[in-house]
Amino acid sequence: MKSNQEIVQLIEKLRKLDTKNMYLNDFFHTWKESDDEIAAVFTVAEILRGMRENNISTKVFDSGLGISVFRDNSTRTRFSFASACNLLGLEVQDLDEKVSQIAHGETVRETANMVSFMADVIGIRDDMYIGKGHTYMKTVADSVEEGYRDGVLEQRPTLVNLQCDIDHPTQSMADMLHVINYFGGVENLKGKKIAMTWAYSPSYGKPLSVPQGIIGLFSRFGMDVVLAHPEGYEIMSDVEEVAAANAKASGGSFRKVNTMEEAFRDADIVYPKSWAPYAVMEERTKLVEQGRFDDLKDLEKRCLENNAKFKNWTCTEELMKTTRDGKALYMHCLPADISGLSCKEGEVDQSVFDRYLVPLYKEASYKPYIIAAMIFLAKFSSPSDKLAQLLKEAKPRIK
Amino acid sequence: MKSNQEIVQLIEKLRKLDTKNMYLNDFFHTWKESDDEIAAVFTVAEILRGMRENNISTKVFDSGLGISVFRDNSTRTRFSFASACNLLGLEVQDLDEKVSQIAHGETVRETANMVSFMADVIGIRDDMYIGKGHTYMKTVADSVEEGYRDGVLEQRPTLVNLQCDIDHPTQSMADMLHVINYFGGVENLKGKKIAMTWAYSPSYGKPLSVPQGIIGLFSRFGMDVVLAHPEGYEIMSDVEEVAAANAKASGGSFRKVNTMEEAFRDADIVYPKSWAPYAVMEERTKLVEQGRFDDLKDLEKRCLENNAKFKNWTCTEELMKTTRDGKALYMHCLPADISGLSCKEGEVDQSVFDRYLVPLYKEASYKPYIIAAMIFLAKFSSPSDKLAQLLKEAKPRIK
Amino acid sequence: MKSNQEIVQLIEKLRKLDTKNMYLNDFFHTWKESDDEIAAVFTVAEILRGMRENNISTKVFDSGLGISVFRDNSTRTRFSFASACNLLGLEVQDLDEKVSQIAHGETVRETANMVSFMADVIGIRDDMYIGKGHTYMKTVADSVEEGYRDGVLEQRPTLVNLQCDIDHPTQSMADMLHVINYFGGVENLKGKKIAMTWAYSPSYGKPLSVPQGIIGLFSRFGMDVVLAHPEGYEIMSDVEEVAAANAKASGGSFRKVNTMEEAFRDADIVYPKSWAPYAVMEERTKLVEQGRFDDLKDLEKRCLENNAKFKNWTCTEELMKTTRDGKALYMHCLPADISGLSCKEGEVDQSVFDRYLVPLYKEASYKPYIIAAMIFLAKFSSPSDKLAQLLKEAKPRIK
Repeated sequence: MKSNQEIVQLIEKLRKLDTKNMYLNDFFHTWKESDDEIAAVFTVAEILRGMRENNISTKVFDSGLGISVFRDNSTRTRFSFASACNLLGLEVQDLDEKVSQIAHGETVRETANMVSFMADVIGIRDDMYIGKGHTYMKTVADSVEEGYRDGVLEQRPTLVNLQCDIDHPTQSMADMLHVINYFGGVENLKGKKIAMTWAYSPSYGKPLSVPQGIIGLFSRFGMDVVLAHPEGYEIMSDVEEVAAANAKASGGSFRKVNTMEEAFRDADIVYPKSWAPYAVMEERTKLVEQGRFDDLKDLEKRCLENNAKFKNWTCTEELMKTTRDGKALYMHCLPADISGLSCKEGEVDQSVFDRYLVPLYKEASYKPYIIAAMIFLAKFSSPSDKLAQLLKEAKPRIK
Repeated sequence: MKSNQEIVQLIEKLRKLDTKNMYLNDFFHTWKESDDEIAAVFTVAEILRGMRENNISTKVFDSGLGISVFRDNSTRTRFSFASACNLLGLEVQDLDEKVSQIAHGETVRETANMVSFMADVIGIRDDMYIGKGHTYMKTVADSVEEGYRDGVLEQRPTLVNLQCDIDHPTQSMADMLHVINYFGGVENLKGKKIAMTWAYSPSYGKPLSVPQGIIGLFSRFGMDVVLAHPEGYEIMSDVEEVAAANAKASGGSFRKVNTMEEAFRDADIVYPKSWAPYAVMEERTKLVEQGRFDDLKDLEKRCLENNAKFKNWTCTEELMKTTRDGKALYMHCLPADISGLSCKEGEVDQSVFDRYLVPLYKEASYKPYIIAAMIFLAKFSSPSDKLAQLLKEAKPRIK
Repeated sequence: MKSNQEIVQLIEKLRKLDTKNMYLNDFFHTWKESDDEIAAVFTVAEILRGMRENNISTKVFDSGLGISVFRDNSTRTRFSFASACNLLGLEVQDLDEKVSQIAHGETVRETANMVSFMADVIGIRDDMYIGKGHTYMKTVADSVEEGYRDGVLEQRPTLVNLQCDIDHPTQSMADMLHVINYFGGVENLKGKKIAMTWAYSPSYGKPLSVPQGIIGLFSRFGMDVVLAHPEGYEIMSDVEEVAAANAKASGGSFRKVNTMEEAFRDADIVYPKSWAPYAVMEERTKLVEQGRFDDLKDLEKRCLENNAKFKNWTCTEELMKTTRDGKALYMHCLPADISGLSCKEGEVDQSVFDRYLVPLYKEASYKPYIIAAMIFLAKFSSPSDKLAQLLKEAKPRIK
């Protein structure tokens, strides 16, 4: 538990960071944010968590809505968003949008305004279709920006990307904050090797935004970022270029290797996780748009057959032994496909998964605070002053 | 944005209005409310909006629930109600009631009490069946009134009609507040011509409560209210009588004409919108009650075929040119059937609709404040004192 | 309406009760709670209701979530839980869990943690399968206890049993608080006869937790508790043993009789209600686990046929006349199967039901306060001090 003094120090750290461009802005991709902005999200997340541990209220909204839009079912992300909103004083309202509706721009603009009269934040998860998710979010953000400018809305709702086809910033930043705490500080990450690797799963169509998000963010911290996947399971090349540029700028490296074995060797962190090949995801989007559902089934069948060729891409105890001192930090965004537990053959051995249960839950526990920090930084022009004021008032959360 | 001084003036205006019968009462139809009461709703709505623009909290409930009951799907109305509740400090709980359940009185009474132990307001939308919606709302309101009297409930929940088979007061009042602001004050409405006209839509069974609500309310302001529809698309004659009586009392007029062209000529406001004929809605209700679903399909088919005879009832650029200076205010409750965009042939040309996008969104933006004003006036015996107090305290909404 | 002085007296009464084991604990079954703890729940419920009647805020949480998990549909229990949470300042988030998912332990543990980052309370209703409901709740409670201990969660969410396969404590305690108020005090219950009897219903598979909850709780107050059901409709023998032991300790009695007539004779309270035989519920659980859905249908058919043999087990006017002065208090957890109203032949005559409508609604009205009291007692180490403080501050609920 953080002491009052530690929270004060974090607020002072925040004060030195330039966050003025975050004010009244949106959060789409980590690589569109400056280093100061990324550091500010981590810092505010830590401060909010510290205050909650100390039963200090962080309810900065007296009223206001947080709108959530989920294009597919999501218990975890939904609860993380609801938790973040609640922590700040916003009430969540869910907007049901069916996956099948790939709405045209005008409808999106109208709906975005109609649900936003009292909205301070809109959280969207739309990761199902390549080329669609981010575009949809951008349209929503532009629509409410216009609505605010035109006097339709009394406030400008902030958009928080809860997972799109390109990035999953609330996941990658929760993951990174976990890593920072695990290794005792961001300054200890230089030179650490992280293996972001594909792993076998008996399911199909898992989004690419997790591996993309991880390499796009972790490459900023001077780490040795290694991506591994079977042939054909390429991710977006744009994001690989982002990772390469980040690595260069941060004094780290970004490499691709061909086997899980090579990726795991001497790794400090391993992140074995399944995803669908980019090409398959592209084909899938087209087939859905054209309503060719028989072809979709065929695509799924072919994809699963192809997956099955790579059942040996799985995080075993043997592989774990090859990591740094045999003790790499195992990470996953959850839920994982656990061999012998949730499926016959999956991403990870049960014994490995079980050993990392508490770290995995802690990893997930940062997400609500990351989301809350993104909202906070978009709503206060001087976030450090506001947090200092909350700390000083020290209004109890449970009275 | 309203200045503090303007808000003070609105509060003084409110103080002169007699609202004592609204206290602990319900809101069913605009024509059951006095002129003072109607003016009070507009005034409180403006005050609440002004306070929100100025970041002044209007959270008058420390806790309490707003129950919403929607007999059919409704994103917009649901968000408007949720926004209004949130603005005042109430948390929304949705009660799922299936369309197919036309519940008998005792079940309604029981459920109404069971969900209302902490309810300060109940908002209901039930517009699907002629002779049912208002009856259902009345039963709910009577049930909770009894529950309060018998000591079952600690408070008397206020019923707000979010659309019934007869009236749609939150829509018509949001529409009217938009008109008042657009024309620079209620005193400027005298003699203005509004054309409430039927328009073609490829869908079927749209409720009559919008046109009924519009003529029932707009006829109170000395306007020239003109209703136009094809033969067979009659609305409830009771409401036409209300409009006629209102017009007489207010020094305006209420007329029916046979063509869209005649209605639009020199109109200051046009409201072209589809609805189902009253006779069809009545037949539909009977068929649903009798479970005659094959006959229902047949009715829908016949109705759509009949609609198709009137595709020329559509709001074109040509028609718009015939309005006052070619610049009538175009209105719609949204969503509209836009020709060439949301359907092949519909209620309005896309170019007309697009030109009025911002006014249309503003029109919709008044609804949450209208709903909040209805709740507010039912909960405070001296609403002007309460609002003056909120203004004086000026507690920030975003702290 | 309670006076300030009466509330002060209740707080003084609470101060003398030992509630220290309730702090940061869960509420599973009434018989696991001491007499002081049971009395404390009633007392806090009365105090919270008294404060609400007097428009005094009891919002002790500035923010925080109440998670609700319902394994089957439930309007009433859902609203009771939502009302209780709202009364204390918690926002409800529903977790959808399908009935068909009988999840294994690890999944439950993971989900329990993932939804609980900001959770102060988890309310679960899982009454469908013998041997499952309580087990599931225990797993959830243990999981979040661990999560709290491991630093995953910042607070320990309290579990409130909203109905399991064994007990239905929020129902039985609301029922008992109604009885205490009806008879003018707990001291007047000694020697009063309550008939908890099976009654015919045309539906199948109703849970046993209501009769079990009633005999398990009512036997603690020196009453003459009589259980009656047709042969084959046995409830859990463990709970019968609890009732027998309770009766002995409290100076009352617990008896089983074979007919409704015998149970009703000179009864002060009657509680006629349908339930499924324990053996059928056990078989049903097995069939569901094995996915034998054809056999399930067959079981339902057999069960309904068997029920139909006992249509004479119904609460008639004639039977009511045989109770104490013909005026026993009729109770039901609602909704009841009312002969000639909600079904052809059911649990109770319509005229009997109608005569007790207001008492039945009052009975139900205690439930939100009982739930709130359970939460309150788990969250404050000195509940009497906290309530005294709230009373002194007297912050208005409606400002």
